[in-house]
Amino acid sequence: MSRRLQLPALSVIALVLSPTPLVQGTDLRGFTAASAATQVDWENRFRAIPDPARIRAALQHLSARPHHVGSPYGKANAEWLRDQFTSYGWEAKIEEYRVLFPTPKERRVELLEPVKYVARLEEPVIPGDPSTSQRAEQLPTYNSYSGEGDVTAPLVYVNYGVPADYEELERRGISVRGAIVIARYGGSWRGIKPKLAAEKGAVGCIIYSDPRDDGYAQGEVYPAGPWRPREGVQRGSVLDLPVAPGDPLTVGTGATPDAARIDRAAATTIMKIPVLPISYGDAQPLLSALGGAVVPEGWRGALPITYRTGPGPARVRLKAEFHWNLTPVYNVVATLRGSDFPDEWVVRGNHHDAWVNGAEDPVAGMVAELEEARALGELVKQGWRPRRTIVYTAWDAEEPALLGSTEWAEHHAAELRQKAVLYLNTDGNGRGYLGAGGSHSLERMLNQVARSVEDPESRVTVWKRQQAARIRFGTPGQRREARERGDLRIDALGSGSDFTPFLQHLGIATLNVGFGGEDGGGIYHSIYDTFAWFTRFSDTSFVYGRALAQVAGTLVMRTANADLLPHEFGALAETARGYVGELKALREEVAGRIAEVNRQLDDGVLAATADPKRPEKLPTREAPALHLNFAALDNATESLSRAAARFERAYAAALGRGVDRATAAAVNAMLRDAERTLTSDQGLPRRPWYRHLLYAPGYYTGYGVKTMPAAREAIEQRAWGEAETEMGRVAEALARTAAHVERIAERLER
Amino acid sequence: MSRRLQLPALSVIALVLSPTPLVQGTDLRGFTAASAATQVDWENRFRAIPDPARIRAALQHLSARPHHVGSPYGKANAEWLRDQFTSYGWEAKIEEYRVLFPTPKERRVELLEPVKYVARLEEPVIPGDPSTSQRAEQLPTYNSYSGEGDVTAPLVYVNYGVPADYEELERRGISVRGAIVIARYGGSWRGIKPKLAAEKGAVGCIIYSDPRDDGYAQGEVYPAGPWRPREGVQRGSVLDLPVAPGDPLTVGTGATPDAARIDRAAATTIMKIPVLPISYGDAQPLLSALGGAVVPEGWRGALPITYRTGPGPARVRLKAEFHWNLTPVYNVVATLRGSDFPDEWVVRGNHHDAWVNGAEDPVAGMVAELEEARALGELVKQGWRPRRTIVYTAWDAEEPALLGSTEWAEHHAAELRQKAVLYLNTDGNGRGYLGAGGSHSLERMLNQVARSVEDPESRVTVWKRQQAARIRFGTPGQRREARERGDLRIDALGSGSDFTPFLQHLGIATLNVGFGGEDGGGIYHSIYDTFAWFTRFSDTSFVYGRALAQVAGTLVMRTANADLLPHEFGALAETARGYVGELKALREEVAGRIAEVNRQLDDGVLAATADPKRPEKLPTREAPALHLNFAALDNATESLSRAAARFERAYAAALGRGVDRATAAAVNAMLRDAERTLTSDQGLPRRPWYRHLLYAPGYYTGYGVKTMPAAREAIEQRAWGEAETEMGRVAEALARTAAHVERIAERLER
Repeated sequence: MSRRLQLPALSVIALVLSPTPLVQGTDLRGFTAASAATQVDWENRFRAIPDPARIRAALQHLSARPHHVGSPYGKANAEWLRDQFTSYGWEAKIEEYRVLFPTPKERRVELLEPVKYVARLEEPVIPGDPSTSQRAEQLPTYNSYSGEGDVTAPLVYVNYGVPADYEELERRGISVRGAIVIARYGGSWRGIKPKLAAEKGAVGCIIYSDPRDDGYAQGEVYPAGPWRPREGVQRGSVLDLPVAPGDPLTVGTGATPDAARIDRAAATTIMKIPVLPISYGDAQPLLSALGGAVVPEGWRGALPITYRTGPGPARVRLKAEFHWNLTPVYNVVATLRGSDFPDEWVVRGNHHDAWVNGAEDPVAGMVAELEEARALGELVKQGWRPRRTIVYTAWDAEEPALLGSTEWAEHHAAELRQKAVLYLNTDGNGRGYLGAGGSHSLERMLNQVARSVEDPESRVTVWKRQQAARIRFGTPGQRREARERGDLRIDALGSGSDFTPFLQHLGIATLNVGFGGEDGGGIYHSIYDTFAWFTRFSDTSFVYGRALAQVAGTLVMRTANADLLPHEFGALAETARGYVGELKALREEVAGRIAEVNRQLDDGVLAATADPKRPEKLPTREAPALHLNFAALDNATESLSRAAARFERAYAAALGRGVDRATAAAVNAMLRDAERTLTSDQGLPRRPWYRHLLYAPGYYTGYGVKTMPAAREAIEQRAWGEAETEMGRVAEALARTAAHVERIAERLER
Repeated sequence: MSRRLQLPALSVIALVLSPTPLVQGTDLRGFTAASAATQVDWENRFRAIPDPARIRAALQHLSARPHHVGSPYGKANAEWLRDQFTSYGWEAKIEEYRVLFPTPKERRVELLEPVKYVARLEEPVIPGDPSTSQRAEQLPTYNSYSGEGDVTAPLVYVNYGVPADYEELERRGISVRGAIVIARYGGSWRGIKPKLAAEKGAVGCIIYSDPRDDGYAQGEVYPAGPWRPREGVQRGSVLDLPVAPGDPLTVGTGATPDAARIDRAAATTIMKIPVLPISYGDAQPLLSALGGAVVPEGWRGALPITYRTGPGPARVRLKAEFHWNLTPVYNVVATLRGSDFPDEWVVRGNHHDAWVNGAEDPVAGMVAELEEARALGELVKQGWRPRRTIVYTAWDAEEPALLGSTEWAEHHAAELRQKAVLYLNTDGNGRGYLGAGGSHSLERMLNQVARSVEDPESRVTVWKRQQAARIRFGTPGQRREARERGDLRIDALGSGSDFTPFLQHLGIATLNVGFGGEDGGGIYHSIYDTFAWFTRFSDTSFVYGRALAQVAGTLVMRTANADLLPHEFGALAETARGYVGELKALREEVAGRIAEVNRQLDDGVLAATADPKRPEKLPTREAPALHLNFAALDNATESLSRAAARFERAYAAALGRGVDRATAAAVNAMLRDAERTLTSDQGLPRRPWYRHLLYAPGYYTGYGVKTMPAAREAIEQRAWGEAETEMGRVAEALARTAAHVERIAERLER
């Protein structure tokens, strides 16, 4: 589901300055000198095992037929994966849930006026790519958890359909009330588009892929090149994921066969209005029939037309009806039992379901995980044992709404809170640069691992290559940081993949990794994400599949066998301080914007620049922004910095002198719980399922992360009272974390 | 010729803060209190006279048929204009020159491989716009002063064809040597494109209008809307204007019938390679036949294709041959003789020739000038007399190379240096905001005049409206300045219109004004710039034609009748100080860029980020930038600031107590010469025709101004020694100006 692979590598990580050899045995975080030597030896053996040829073969097998949730090949893949794990020596099983999964009964998009056009809503077969012709097994193009309806209304083009776009429409006096909106993909997660449209009174929503963002403007289209062809369509979920992912009938509990289910009509995360995705081939007749104002420059796509907003004269009929079936979900769960701490779990996952054949998304990540499992199995045969239990998972039904992972995490919540010390996620893979996001307490370990894996193209470490990218392509600030900061900075996580229930619902320390940035393409969630496409245009020799297995497997091995869990809190404290700085700057910016608009109204500036030939609506005066009290947040981040420094001294000293079993057990239990001190049982305002107070998907951005989300969104919405309250809750959480870290240090100092 | 009307209003002027009534009689710069009262009275009477209906009728008459230089209707227009001036009571005549003016003999653009396509090179008639059907009189689409040739070569797309674009191509290892380049209009003056292409070894150049910049992406195309239709072509000059405008056979002297002429083969300003402009309809088959790398995002136009660089497989034939005729130029020169100072001239001009019918360019400006002349004639009938001589001109042959104005200015150079106190230019007109550029010593007067004219749409002064635009649409810095600076800041002038010979060759204080910014359109230099287009899409009610007549006429009257000429030097000193700051920042930026590239080479950053599937050429190490001595420039601008302050005190005191005739004569003569202290007889490096040391068109930008051009361009080119020398020359000039201003103050203090 994730579009991480499409992001510029820049947004991801930066690494330290000097060219550095592969990591030496003495600086493995969490290991005493003695255990580090053994660990390095096993890690080196591990990284020699993953084999591009096997990765390729597994990708070809898993992507050979469409395998969405509920499909025969999806079930077959789950069973095949289970059997592979078993053959590698793991204890593997399938855990089944039953979820509400809508599939199309009727789809219709028609232009009625000023001319007639009936949208094809179908992706043509590409000769030479046999996977594209598996018609009978392909899911049609649609958005899962769309509302149902049959509506006819004037059309309005809303650009990406994000809040700023509606502000622009309002300035022009254009309303979408009673209209069908057409938005282009991009600028936010897709589910935001119908959600906002419905809030603004629209009765339907069409989403299309503009060739400027995802088509011929980017490069040659498939099959001549990797980009989206004229009739290619992006499927995808429009469940209200920023409120809660997973089965909309069982929010907060696992969708076991006998789980209590609410009525579909009562499900709040199902979209209220009908939504359908279309190709740019189908969009062009609709968009070129629009009248009204010419759009601003930033709204223009690459179709050979004058983009206008409407409303009308284009009048459109949009009809969407679905089969609402309870569908079985097959999660594969494989275990290597830990020798010393079997009740401390290192959990690793990637989903196995796809929208269609899904060679890139998700299979390219799934096959790296599978190759890690094989390699770990090999190590076991050679005498290696994980000290902690390793749990490898292959999730079903990620695409429609993160269903497999969410239901499993909800179902096993108590056990996971008790046992899981890490959740490590991948979701597909590509060619290019290592990207990483997650809990900042794991940033240090990620850096060390990234220094131990070689990039297959440049032959420097994946860590050095990412640093070079940030120096070369970054802003001056990013460049400076990449050169001067000791460690790479990892991203905060929003949503869009299976890490969400673990990190944001359960408060388990989490990482998400993958390669990308040199593998552009436009086959995302279409019938063209195939073995043929992947082996022509992406990680064609599967060396980045191997690199991903090396990075992820090393992270797993290191966490599984550390004497003390590899957490570090200095980066967390620094990052939290940075977020507080962003909140302060955001308040200033919002305050400045309000004051400027009011001043321009008072001074007659807006009236003087009105163009009588292009009427616009003057904004109304807003109340000035309030000042906010940042002292508690500043105090809490400083406390956390001090605690982190004390912890660091105690941690190093303890490892230096050797750690006894009782200390290790006590400290590791506290380290496992550290992430949870950043959560709140009551959750975020208006979305209690999300409990993490530092990281959440934006309420109006979707996948995109908002850090310190409740406070940040309150400031954005000018809800000054709520902002004060939420800043207080974050400050309390950080103070709680600081106290927790002090207690760990104290335990280590004994 | 100027595209000023297409520029955002922002780049032009900013005005002071508070809503201000139309100017009162007591603060007219250069007037004693007594003469100011009379002046205000006459100015008010003047501004009541211009009549939109007459402006419309004159525009309809002058644009009724194609009237390029050498055409029958062009000659008829000159005679009609002369007769109009005469009928208003002016002494009017036609002054004739003979210039080399090439017109097409044969034009051919053909795609030979991989498929065949023959470019139409013709603009279709638009039913409903009768002017477009005057086929027999229309000049074909071409670029004047193109080289001749018949070349066949692989095609390379070079984006705008500016220096940064060739740097990008070099990074990708792409050369244009032996190729034909295709560049889109925009990003620089058009003549830069073939000039740079030839320097890089290309054998031909095609320039096209991309619909992203000038076509359907901007809005509906003509006749449905104002924008450039699919087969519309922009004609225009490609003479090497940044080296010298005017007749290439008589550079520096007037092209009188008996002038000495060089051989055409020896003319350095004629382009070396063949060039032809084409429409986007003709460009699309060529561009879509290109292979090679996909272009970077900033290079993408709005055609529905994947833009690629080539070279090849597209192979193109380009043929251009011309009739090289000596052609008569008919300048109209009309005079109102001054009562007190007949040998002090206020010169006002707009060109009358067009590429085709030219309703917007140039006629909309020409008819405002004509209406001013009528109104001034009316005032004379009512008893008003100009104290200085007013010279109203209508230039021929501006479009091909500023020929009429340049030959006249060169021919009358000695007399103009002796007599001209101001050159005031316009070049077409549109709807929207007042734009102004010119000598910063006239900034104060321009501000005062802009406060005395009402904007016809908003009913605030044109000055207040421009201030509001800068506050609303400007950067934070522009916004602050617009609010806090007492006066509007005017632009420095580059080239592209008839002010160039006066300001930059003769050193006469100059202003250039016009309205625009709400009148977008894509008919520039095409057969669609017609009365029908103008009256549907531009200043449809001609109220901005009246406003232009009011602004320009008031500037003329105020300069003509001031007791002391309205110069002021504080703004000049502040502006020069700003330019010095820009030079310092430019050196730092160039130095930083060199150091950064060298560091990235040393650190292996570029090698580590290379993509083996997209080969690129690593840059080579450059010598570090040298530090430069800015002390002389800093000293000179400070001297000028001090001199300006002293002058200001003396000027106010003198006007306060009354100015005797001898003082006025002496001081006005010195003020007339002030602009000349900023020039150098030896001119700029490699282009001695350009003598102004503060303002010139950029050697590699064309119309776009470079301030302190020789020093700035030397720094850009990393010619550190030349930069030092040229900074010294500018510092000397500014010191000379400071001393001159001190002498004027001294004379006033007597």
